[in-house]
Amino acid sequence: MSDKLAVQQVLAHYVRAHDRRDGATMAALFTPQARVTIFYNNPPHGEPELLGELVGREAIAQATAHMMKPHPARGWSHNATDGLIVDIDGDRATVDAQFMVFTVLGDAKPASGWPAGAAGAMGTITPIESGYYTQKLVRVEGQWLIESLRVRHNLPMAF
Amino acid sequence: MSDKLAVQQVLAHYVRAHDRRDGATMAALFTPQARVTIFYNNPPHGEPELLGELVGREAIAQATAHMMKPHPARGWSHNATDGLIVDIDGDRATVDAQFMVFTVLGDAKPASGWPAGAAGAMGTITPIESGYYTQKLVRVEGQWLIESLRVRHNLPMAF
Amino acid sequence: MSDKLAVQQVLAHYVRAHDRRDGATMAALFTPQARVTIFYNNPPHGEPELLGELVGREAIAQATAHMMKPHPARGWSHNATDGLIVDIDGDRATVDAQFMVFTVLGDAKPASGWPAGAAGAMGTITPIESGYYTQKLVRVEGQWLIESLRVRHNLPMAF
Repeated sequence: MSDKLAVQQVLAHYVRAHDRRDGATMAALFTPQARVTIFYNNPPHGEPELLGELVGREAIAQATAHMMKPHPARGWSHNATDGLIVDIDGDRATVDAQFMVFTVLGDAKPASGWPAGAAGAMGTITPIESGYYTQKLVRVEGQWLIESLRVRHNLPMAF
Repeated sequence: MSDKLAVQQVLAHYVRAHDRRDGATMAALFTPQARVTIFYNNPPHGEPELLGELVGREAIAQATAHMMKPHPARGWSHNATDGLIVDIDGDRATVDAQFMVFTVLGDAKPASGWPAGAAGAMGTITPIESGYYTQKLVRVEGQWLIESLRVRHNLPMAF
Repeated sequence: MSDKLAVQQVLAHYVRAHDRRDGATMAALFTPQARVTIFYNNPPHGEPELLGELVGREAIAQATAHMMKPHPARGWSHNATDGLIVDIDGDRATVDAQFMVFTVLGDAKPASGWPAGAAGAMGTITPIESGYYTQKLVRVEGQWLIESLRVRHNLPMAF
């Protein structure tokens, strides 16, 4: 696999681990001492405001599994990324991506079945987050790992 | 063109054929005996539930042209894919992608023109589907074709 | 960097300049005499309707900075692209992409702080545009520049 493909696909695994709330898989994408910093971007002209920081795989795993809201019954999330800018220099790389998170909530199927005339997907999808990921990656024993991740949200966050 | 680019672009042609309800173009992306299986993913922890299966180009063409709702006047759909994971091994490849489908419905322009002060796009865009595509591809006489496609929906589907 | 990566990333810079309303950065992605044509796609079966045309970097810079609505306080936009079809032939290339634009509007934080129980992103994200970009690029002194851009909107536009 080309370096470019390998580097891009770290992000593809990241979003799946995010949506599964899978802390162990997420942590394994990072170096042991990786740092995640989370900002509110305060558009259009403000200074980014630091909201939080995570250091190390254990903290990243915990935040993935427990800091995000658990999915309700028939609920899921979809973390979509676009507009990747990839820069590779030997064993180091930067990936800058735009992201959006959607919540997905299925309707409960009535005991009598879907109503007459119902067709297609039953439920709602709502965009809830938009922002930018900046990943710095390093190749360790042939595998690309995230050394730092900067998340900049375009919406303010309440905790 | 690199294999990786060629393999990825099958998906880019797939989504355009989907949005145009173009059965002939869609069928030509698949091998003659291709199989499409459609599941409800039943998040977060359920077993995927088989909703339907299509075998062969004729069935795929018919489903593309007639099984999906036709677009109304001023209506369209936008099938967006993200987070591709591509694996190529000789003449075989797998592409795993996240997808979302949006319906796009334009407003009717009043005979007197758009209202004073109206600016920008006039209409509504609604996310209706979210899920995962897993394509197995095979290279036949230099062209990458889809041999199997597994669609997993994150929302339940009524028929 | 591979040609393919370089060509794709022009689009990644385009969407960021779009969302920042950054006319100078946007204009620098184009050749001096570049042409942008904007159409309403009139789905599903109509003829594309020409809505407007821009010629040259100065016109492109002005349109980027002033023709699009300025962002309000706590407002931003997210121009997401997907489904790229890339074709490179020597020093010329074509990139066809699907796009969607979302408006992002943050809630004002109350003086007393977010309400008890509030969690996550505070604000709304609304999809407002969907369509297709077709870029023709040319390599000039090692740099890929957009020579023409055709924008086809899936929704009618009011001005």
